[in-house]
Amino acid sequence: MQCRTITRTEAAQLAMVLEVTASPKPGNVDRGHDYPDTRLEHFLASAVFARTALEHAEEGEEGIGALIEAAVQDTNCHAGGNTHFGAFILLIPLVMGGDAARGFRAARATTVEDAVAFYRAFSATQVRVLERDEIDVNDPAAADLLRERGMTLYDVMAYSAERDMVAREWTNGFALCTETADRLIARGTGREAIVRTFLDMLAAYPDTFIAKKHGPAVAEETMLRAREVQAGRLALSVFDEECLARGINPGSLADIMIAGIYLALLEGWQWDC
Amino acid sequence: MQCRTITRTEAAQLAMVLEVTASPKPGNVDRGHDYPDTRLEHFLASAVFARTALEHAEEGEEGIGALIEAAVQDTNCHAGGNTHFGAFILLIPLVMGGDAARGFRAARATTVEDAVAFYRAFSATQVRVLERDEIDVNDPAAADLLRERGMTLYDVMAYSAERDMVAREWTNGFALCTETADRLIARGTGREAIVRTFLDMLAAYPDTFIAKKHGPAVAEETMLRAREVQAGRLALSVFDEECLARGINPGSLADIMIAGIYLALLEGWQWDC
Repeated sequence: MQCRTITRTEAAQLAMVLEVTASPKPGNVDRGHDYPDTRLEHFLASAVFARTALEHAEEGEEGIGALIEAAVQDTNCHAGGNTHFGAFILLIPLVMGGDAARGFRAARATTVEDAVAFYRAFSATQVRVLERDEIDVNDPAAADLLRERGMTLYDVMAYSAERDMVAREWTNGFALCTETADRLIARGTGREAIVRTFLDMLAAYPDTFIAKKHGPAVAEETMLRAREVQAGRLALSVFDEECLARGINPGSLADIMIAGIYLALLEGWQWDC
Repeated sequence: MQCRTITRTEAAQLAMVLEVTASPKPGNVDRGHDYPDTRLEHFLASAVFARTALEHAEEGEEGIGALIEAAVQDTNCHAGGNTHFGAFILLIPLVMGGDAARGFRAARATTVEDAVAFYRAFSATQVRVLERDEIDVNDPAAADLLRERGMTLYDVMAYSAERDMVAREWTNGFALCTETADRLIARGTGREAIVRTFLDMLAAYPDTFIAKKHGPAVAEETMLRAREVQAGRLALSVFDEECLARGINPGSLADIMIAGIYLALLEGWQWDC
C-alpha cells in the first residue's frame, strides 16, 4: 500500500501525541504517570479536538490570534484544565507558515485584533501569569488597552519574551523549536530520541514555566539536575520522582518539544522505527 | 468557557484513544505495554489519521466500503501494521448513521461496490483470514466473484458472521456494541469503567480474533480465565501476563469496545471524571 504524505495538521497532532506518550519525561504527564487533575487522556483528547483550528491555520483562513482562541475553545471540552495552550502559541504560526522561517513571518505580520483574540483565549485558560503583569488578562479593559497602545500579538509576545520562553520563540524565529528538531533528528528515531532530546533541552535551558511557578532558582536547579542525569551521576527515574514530588513540571520546554517534533516530522524524521 | 458538543467524528477518535490507553487490558496494547511491532503510538497515530474518513462518513459523502478503504489507507502510514481495521468496520456505519439503529440501516443499504472496495481494503491489511475462506481477499478475481454473485457488503458480513464477531455486529444491529455501551454507562465514569467493561465482555463472549489465531478452544479458555478474574480467583495482572506470554490478544472485543465507547460518548457518558 502506497503511504501518503501526512498534512501539516496531522504532523502537529502527531507531535502532540508523541510528546505526551514519550516516557519517562521528568515531572510531566507521560505514559507512566498523570497529575491528579490532568491525565494522559486529557492531552490526547486535546490533540484530537485541535484538528479544526490547525486545519484552518494550514489553509491560512483566519488570523493567528483567532485560531489560538479557537484551538483553546475547541480543546477545553474536558476537566483536565489547560493542556496545550503554550503548544498552540507555537504550532498555529508554524502550521500556518509551514516551517520556522515562514512561521516567523506569519508571527511578525500579526495585528492588534490578533492580540485581542489571544487575550480572550488567555483569560479562558488557567495559565499562570505573573502577579505584576501589566496587562491583566482578566481585565475586560485589556482589549481597550491593547487597541489604545496599538499592540499586535507579536508585540505582546515580545513584551513577555524575557520571562516566557514560549513567547520568546516568536521573537527569535523559533530558535529553540528548531534546535529541538535538529537535536531530535541527530538523536535518532522513535520515542527514545524524544526522551533524550527532552533531557538535552532540560539540561540546556531553565524552564520559564517552572520559574513562574516556583521561582527562577528552582528552574535553574532543575536544569542542573538534568545535567547530573546526563553526566550519569543521577538516575533519570530518581530525577523524575524528585520533580513529581515537588510539583516541578517543565511545561514550557514540553511545548517547545511539541513544536520541535512537528518541525522534525516535516523534515521526514522517523517516529515509528 | 462554554463547552461545545463534540462531533461524531471526534467521539469516534476519542473512543479509539480512550480504548487503547485504558490499562490494564489483558493481552492488548495499552498504556502499560506494547507489542514488539505494534505500539501505543501506532494506535494513537491511527486515531489521528482516521479523521478525514470519519468526517466523510459523518457527512454521508461516500459509500461505507469506500470509506473503510479510505480509513485503512489513511491510517496505514506507520510501521505498526493493522491497528483499527476492525474498529473502522464498526465505526464507519455508526458514525454515518449516528447511532446503532441508523448504523444498522446504513449497513443493510450497502451495495456490491461497497463490497468490492472493502475487499480492496482488506487485502491491503495483514488481517488474519481463515485458510478456507471461499472468497480469497488476495485474489484479483474476488471483485468479479462479488459482482457475479451480487454480494453487497452486508452480504459479505453476513457470510463472515458465524466466525467473526465484528462482522456479526452488522447482522444483529450492533448488539454487542450496544451492550458494551450500556455496561460502560452502568460501570461509572472514566478509564476504570473501560477496564471493567472490557473484562465484562471478555468474560461473556469468546473473542473470534483469538479463535482465528489460536483456535476456538483458546478463545473459550480465555473467556473462562476472565471469569476467574471477575470471581476474584485470579489477579488481573496475572491474567494479563498469561495472555501476553502466549500472544493472546482479544482484538475483536477491543474493536467492539471502541464502538461501545463511541455509542456511550454520544449518550453523554463521562470519560474524564
